[in-house]
Amino acid sequence: MHRAATITSSANPLVKDVRRAIERGGLTSQGWCVAETFHLVEEALRDAEVRQVLAAESAREAAQARLDAYPGVPVAVLPDRLFQTVSATGTSQGVLALVNLPCRACFCLPALLVVLDGVQDPGNAGAIVRAAEAFGASGALFLKGAVSPYNPKTLRASAGSLFRVPFLYGVEAEGARDALEASRITRYAAVPARPGSPVRPLSEIDLTGDCAIVIGSEGGGVGPAMAGGAVGISIPTAGVESLNAAVAAGILLYEARRQRSARP
Amino acid sequence: MHRAATITSSANPLVKDVRRAIERGGLTSQGWCVAETFHLVEEALRDAEVRQVLAAESAREAAQARLDAYPGVPVAVLPDRLFQTVSATGTSQGVLALVNLPCRACFCLPALLVVLDGVQDPGNAGAIVRAAEAFGASGALFLKGAVSPYNPKTLRASAGSLFRVPFLYGVEAEGARDALEASRITRYAAVPARPGSPVRPLSEIDLTGDCAIVIGSEGGGVGPAMAGGAVGISIPTAGVESLNAAVAAGILLYEARRQRSARP
Repeated sequence: MHRAATITSSANPLVKDVRRAIERGGLTSQGWCVAETFHLVEEALRDAEVRQVLAAESAREAAQARLDAYPGVPVAVLPDRLFQTVSATGTSQGVLALVNLPCRACFCLPALLVVLDGVQDPGNAGAIVRAAEAFGASGALFLKGAVSPYNPKTLRASAGSLFRVPFLYGVEAEGARDALEASRITRYAAVPARPGSPVRPLSEIDLTGDCAIVIGSEGGGVGPAMAGGAVGISIPTAGVESLNAAVAAGILLYEARRQRSARP
Repeated sequence: MHRAATITSSANPLVKDVRRAIERGGLTSQGWCVAETFHLVEEALRDAEVRQVLAAESAREAAQARLDAYPGVPVAVLPDRLFQTVSATGTSQGVLALVNLPCRACFCLPALLVVLDGVQDPGNAGAIVRAAEAFGASGALFLKGAVSPYNPKTLRASAGSLFRVPFLYGVEAEGARDALEASRITRYAAVPARPGSPVRPLSEIDLTGDCAIVIGSEGGGVGPAMAGGAVGISIPTAGVESLNAAVAAGILLYEARRQRSARP
């Protein structure tokens, strides 16, 4: 059985640090990312570098059983009531991991990148990275101004895909644009279909080359730096309605994968 | 200028009622649905039946300007601090509408229905209805056990599409299945691709007839009543990963619309 330390004080520095990271939607002071729920902790153990696990007393056995194969990972057990003050969601299942999750370069070729240009909602951002993995994207670029990939809610919505999809965070839009151009990666900016204008079917837009699909913010769309010089791409809809950012990203990535799979 | 009543007490019955509806994620005691943000209030005024508008003092003028064309809608103004105790989100923009939003039969033909079978997250449910409108679905069925379409978060995530897409709520799965079968509407149950098994491209699955696309819960997928006798349909992915429920629904509805638009 895994040996576990015990934390009983709400003033414990680690507890305070984790609570703050969850509240702020960012990293702990030591640069660790908070992964809640058993599913996410398991994925983190398999695909990332776990530095510490916190478990509520009632989840202690379940947590330790999962850690049997990882004897090097320290575990701290907290009384249930204290654990609840740490977890923001109330549905953490009494377990969380602190994970080292470094940015990784993602301009490698062949490129199928997704660029988050101002996406604000962590649920959307996570779902986009999840779709990126499902459709074999080569990476995700979180531009400056987008929600953090290290927000525990983003990580959770990614269902662990952030452990596997290379991503960069905090890149200036101009710098990202220049880097994409230097790598000859074509930018496709997702834009709403204009009412009354005919929309080209996605199947007629060639997404088989090196490309980056740019998803703008929920309110304002793609920003000027990324839109300039980009190819506008719209999803044909029956009405004039726009789509949720993650749904739009999912459809564009699906279409890119479909075309790439069909290519001989 | 629109005349407005003033509410200053946090014990005001309407204020208490609205606060409770938001907290519970449901209707007010009078059966009204809470629509927050100016965008949603405007859509409600245009496409639904607004019974009452509440505005924070600081948003009073902006709210009244939008109500100029709707002199019959009563407005109540609240001190900002009181308004904030009503709104759960903190991003309500100081305005909300109470909307009468009846269920509407949606088994009409030709059918392109989306069935929410246990979808729990209001953000996902709303994004699904938004995609349903964008791709010309004939309706949405919220089965018993799914999140409520009347949850203010669902309504908000739908970006107003719930005002326009016919929907039913609280239908038992068995009853819905029987009704779909009686109407000769084919059920397609979204299921994750099985690792190692070949997945038929969506374009080879005929979605041009009367059909219902069934989206299961985030955790457990499609339930037994809806899965029995349904055609399983999987989205081809590069890996073995599943997708966010709203992203999956969006891709399937997109594909159905694509096929239906291409049909001569």
